[in-house]
Amino acid sequence: MTVTNGVHVHKSVPSALPLVQKLSKDHDLVLKTFRLLIADLCQQFSGGHPGGAVGMAAIGVSLWKYVMRYAPHTPDFFNRDRFVLSNGHTCLFQYSFLHLTGYKAMTLEQLKSYHSDRVDALCPGHPEIEHEGIEVTTGPLGQGIANAVGLAMATKNLAATYNRPGYDVVDNHTWCMIGDACLQEGVGLEAISLAGHFRLNNLTVMYDNNQITCDGSVDLTNTEDVNAKMRACGWNVIDVEDGCFDIEGIVSALEQARASKDKPTFINVRTVIGLDSSVAGTAVAHGAAYGTSSVADIKTLYGFDPEDHFVIGDTAREFFKGLPARGQNYVQEWDQLVKNYTTEYPELGAEFQARVRGELPADWQKYIPTNFPEKPTASRASSGLVFNPIAKELKTFMVGTADLSPSVNMIWPGKVDFQHPDLRTNCKIDGNYSGRYIHWGVREHAMAAVSNGLAAYAPNTIIPVTSSFFMFYLYAAPAVRMGALQHLQIIHVATHDSIGMGEDGPTHQPIELAALYRAMPNLLYIRPGDSEETAGAWIAAINAKKTPSIISTSRQVLPQLTNTRRDGVALGAYVLSENESASVTLIGVGAELSFALEVAEKLKTEKGVTARVVSFPCQRLFEQQTLQYKRDTLRRHQGISAVVIEPYAPNGWERYADAGISVKRFGHSLPGKAAYKFFGYDIETLTAKVADYLDQIKGGELLRGEFVEL
Amino acid sequence: MTVTNGVHVHKSVPSALPLVQKLSKDHDLVLKTFRLLIADLCQQFSGGHPGGAVGMAAIGVSLWKYVMRYAPHTPDFFNRDRFVLSNGHTCLFQYSFLHLTGYKAMTLEQLKSYHSDRVDALCPGHPEIEHEGIEVTTGPLGQGIANAVGLAMATKNLAATYNRPGYDVVDNHTWCMIGDACLQEGVGLEAISLAGHFRLNNLTVMYDNNQITCDGSVDLTNTEDVNAKMRACGWNVIDVEDGCFDIEGIVSALEQARASKDKPTFINVRTVIGLDSSVAGTAVAHGAAYGTSSVADIKTLYGFDPEDHFVIGDTAREFFKGLPARGQNYVQEWDQLVKNYTTEYPELGAEFQARVRGELPADWQKYIPTNFPEKPTASRASSGLVFNPIAKELKTFMVGTADLSPSVNMIWPGKVDFQHPDLRTNCKIDGNYSGRYIHWGVREHAMAAVSNGLAAYAPNTIIPVTSSFFMFYLYAAPAVRMGALQHLQIIHVATHDSIGMGEDGPTHQPIELAALYRAMPNLLYIRPGDSEETAGAWIAAINAKKTPSIISTSRQVLPQLTNTRRDGVALGAYVLSENESASVTLIGVGAELSFALEVAEKLKTEKGVTARVVSFPCQRLFEQQTLQYKRDTLRRHQGISAVVIEPYAPNGWERYADAGISVKRFGHSLPGKAAYKFFGYDIETLTAKVADYLDQIKGGELLRGEFVEL
Repeated sequence: MTVTNGVHVHKSVPSALPLVQKLSKDHDLVLKTFRLLIADLCQQFSGGHPGGAVGMAAIGVSLWKYVMRYAPHTPDFFNRDRFVLSNGHTCLFQYSFLHLTGYKAMTLEQLKSYHSDRVDALCPGHPEIEHEGIEVTTGPLGQGIANAVGLAMATKNLAATYNRPGYDVVDNHTWCMIGDACLQEGVGLEAISLAGHFRLNNLTVMYDNNQITCDGSVDLTNTEDVNAKMRACGWNVIDVEDGCFDIEGIVSALEQARASKDKPTFINVRTVIGLDSSVAGTAVAHGAAYGTSSVADIKTLYGFDPEDHFVIGDTAREFFKGLPARGQNYVQEWDQLVKNYTTEYPELGAEFQARVRGELPADWQKYIPTNFPEKPTASRASSGLVFNPIAKELKTFMVGTADLSPSVNMIWPGKVDFQHPDLRTNCKIDGNYSGRYIHWGVREHAMAAVSNGLAAYAPNTIIPVTSSFFMFYLYAAPAVRMGALQHLQIIHVATHDSIGMGEDGPTHQPIELAALYRAMPNLLYIRPGDSEETAGAWIAAINAKKTPSIISTSRQVLPQLTNTRRDGVALGAYVLSENESASVTLIGVGAELSFALEVAEKLKTEKGVTARVVSFPCQRLFEQQTLQYKRDTLRRHQGISAVVIEPYAPNGWERYADAGISVKRFGHSLPGKAAYKFFGYDIETLTAKVADYLDQIKGGELLRGEFVEL
Repeated sequence: MTVTNGVHVHKSVPSALPLVQKLSKDHDLVLKTFRLLIADLCQQFSGGHPGGAVGMAAIGVSLWKYVMRYAPHTPDFFNRDRFVLSNGHTCLFQYSFLHLTGYKAMTLEQLKSYHSDRVDALCPGHPEIEHEGIEVTTGPLGQGIANAVGLAMATKNLAATYNRPGYDVVDNHTWCMIGDACLQEGVGLEAISLAGHFRLNNLTVMYDNNQITCDGSVDLTNTEDVNAKMRACGWNVIDVEDGCFDIEGIVSALEQARASKDKPTFINVRTVIGLDSSVAGTAVAHGAAYGTSSVADIKTLYGFDPEDHFVIGDTAREFFKGLPARGQNYVQEWDQLVKNYTTEYPELGAEFQARVRGELPADWQKYIPTNFPEKPTASRASSGLVFNPIAKELKTFMVGTADLSPSVNMIWPGKVDFQHPDLRTNCKIDGNYSGRYIHWGVREHAMAAVSNGLAAYAPNTIIPVTSSFFMFYLYAAPAVRMGALQHLQIIHVATHDSIGMGEDGPTHQPIELAALYRAMPNLLYIRPGDSEETAGAWIAAINAKKTPSIISTSRQVLPQLTNTRRDGVALGAYVLSENESASVTLIGVGAELSFALEVAEKLKTEKGVTARVVSFPCQRLFEQQTLQYKRDTLRRHQGISAVVIEPYAPNGWERYADAGISVKRFGHSLPGKAAYKFFGYDIETLTAKVADYLDQIKGGELLRGEFVEL
């Protein structure tokens, strides 16, 4: 290995590489076997991404054989090192090592399912968390590296909370493989900056520096001094010049990384994409099979039989053979350690084991107030009233904000920041790794993506809570999606929803964003209407063990309503004010729920129209109810028209309402009440619109069944 | 000025600053006047963001008085320097200088409208492009700096295309003010990397380094060596130690920046947030008025009368007086230059002037094929057939991709890359600034945000075209939104839509994303069904002069259909196959349009059910049609049920259909056809579902008007 301070090398011609082949005979055979396996796997269905996986072979051997602590036969071993393949399209790299190292589910037959039409394949086009040995689902670039930062933070937090002298019950390392893209994607850059700030010395990023992207040379679009940039971000940097063969050098770099005192480590490994194929060192090697004759040529070059496919010889099998047993040793040592720890620290040990099992104390709801002050309260403040006592008591929750502490009300008395303790001396920043309040900075996307990593450490061991203005969850959306896709429990507290947030104007008023989150599978988007419903929103979110939630709250004060019910929120929608002979149902939502009640009152007193009111905080929870409940709640089958009042794009409400008083354009910068008035959300205008609508339905100018925006 | 190589200073205590007060008497008075104006403007309605604007006063004086070339009385002067306030919450900074320098619309009365309930205020909570003197709408952090990169690229491209010796018809500079957030947000970091790569020496970023964010000290979340990071990204770095007072030093730094030979410049200006207020140097100064007594105290300190408000004395007025006249000189010189240029280069001059007016040649549609090969074609390929001939001929289009050149088919014969010409020598990368093909790298968010800047340079002078997989327009969404909000014409080519994209799996299959873009105001989301409709999609997008579009295309081949019509796309939806006595309308969309036709056929032959088919490429265009057209197209008022076939979340289709064959969960990694089959999108299953639905409606088990997912 050559450790240099050298900068990023700009040439991508393989022949320019100093190919120091420090290879044992076994290594040579194992690397060849691995590379041919990848070539064959792509060739069978003539698709997939061979080049990167082939180029990274020596990195994989170094990791799985010599450095990484894991247990193929106990894949969920709690204190295992985590491996994240952030360049997820090279998934065959990981799948093949899972097979070779003895993960039971990954049989050779399963390995061959890559790109097949087998519905239960364990080898999808990108790694998926559901499958044995996969820590996080990757694919969308930049997400994995951010997840890895979260996994490393989880270790730091659990270690600082539970480790005691002689008992390092949590001390695993996180290894993350990246390609060029993770150094280009904003979410990756945000996460890199955070990892440096938090001084995560238990995180190593290995950069597959093959200088090739889909478009061609990386120099087409990126000519930075990447090592200098990483150093400026607070990382150790180690160069490996011959990443295709120099296993000894890579192992040494990885071990240096694990021994790092106070910085995360970036290992810049020079590799050749599609090594030894006819397209080696070119973009063509990235996303297409080599072709039958090229694969045959490599086999000949390597001294293999061109007619044989998927060959894993005895020497290669032997090379990996002892790994499951080694893994079980780790497991047994750790089990014993935890047993002794629990003997010495019974209370802490019990708490730790409950955390390992992902359990909250059964009586966690006792921390939620049973009732609230009667004064009008912004639901962002209600959210603090409901949740901060829980956060204070239960270490499961790690709570953070994208630089909006004064706005989101997530600080509990005595909260401690998650920080490296040395920042106290250097920058007068208090905190330590057992702290559970995270200053994410103005990095909404990384906030959500790193939180996915915190949640993925082990099921429900840590429940991350993020917070920002609702509008900026559009920045975070790709990561919110990845949380939902992976069935991770994460709670996003989104304040300043609706045009009622006021002066900040159209750039901050989330007209269309609810449509996205209501459509996103496996996500609860909940808009509570007062403190009581906010309690319901939190209960629903904390009970959703495999589903992330967004709790969407108001900047402005809302009246405390009399008939709202926290258990109603769990149903998605419920009748707030019934009237057997109603001629219209008003659907009220979140910050505008009280408007529906006021309009119902005014319709009665001024227009002689009888209205009933349904509170509708969450469409997805409502969809989970029975058809009967849904009909009884909405009563549209009885011919009662429903009008929804929400200053958002109406998309999706057409399923539940016949008309919407909605907003079809971007917002307007005005004080909250003036903004409401500007868009017709004063009680007088709303009442007139509903009455007028009913007249038009009666007069036949409008047809029921044709959704109308009023 | 102190130019040092010193790194980022971590202390935020104002008294620690070396306050070298190199102030002329006039400067002193002007700075005080400006700072009090900001304090008064926030105090009147007790809200807003005073601290940053106050801290940046000397930067503003340096820019508007001494360095920036602009014309207050001709705000849209084509060759003006562009100023972008990326930290948009400090908008009073810009509004106040617009007033002081003589922009006519920004009267003192208008200035006072900040945070008022005046509906036609020119002082919204963040700068808005609609208003005189504002180049781009900012607010969502990180967007502005990316826009600035686009503005600088626009200058480079127009200059390289049209300038001739002695005739620099385009040579303006772009100045961008940022706070800490733009150095934290991923989109900002992506844009910074691009600006360094493209060596945009006509771009200067001024960093208001006050070391304070909402949460407190920047050190809470960011302890990078920011100057070293910027250098690693290819930027010049200049430090200004006393940014509150050292106008001479700031001017010198700005002039150095304008003279930079081949790099963008980053000026790290140390300032104090809320200078001289009781909350100076603290987070409290960021987002709240100082309070009446604090404002009075500052007035006393400055020798002003505490009872007087909004005071702009004669000396301050005099200081800015000559700027409109200076501006008109720039305008006249440029007008004369363009006149002489057009005399010497008549053809080029005429073309340039048409570009300035934002005009395309009237006959641009002639480049679009009138018909297409009959063989099945992926609509991503159709898109290339339609658009690449236009891109080849018309310099208005700048076309780029987020590292997916081989997938998106946007390369025309002879295309030249937009690159700094020196990369040819250093990295063997061909291209120059007149090139119009942009390798954005794996930076979808910056691709869209920088494109907003390209489009904002002047209305329709450049029409940016971006491209990536549809799913990754979720990464780009905040910038796509800002394009729509600003009425910028940008065309996003989103390929690999629908589950039909196959093996890449659920991370790449955009189940819920269409719901976002169909709900987003002022955006056309168009899914064409074959080559003919793809022509229609492009025509609609190119005709939408104030609206961005997403053209959403398939990875997989689609049959060329017989009755599709490009002019039908302009209507949003149209009848593809009519049948007077139909008992069901099948709505077909994009890649699955042919499924609707096949199902209709099978319903007839196998179930004896008569179906009509509507092609529905764009909901927003359809909404713009008359009620009569909409009813005639869908015929739901005649009691005919409509079933939409689209493998997306159905949200929004409930307005047009009674039932949807949709997808309620995330996707699955399978080859395209197998993925369709897995989700029931084979013709047999689809047909059975429609027939079954009709039976259930007939039998009363389902009620019309209750939207059902089949």
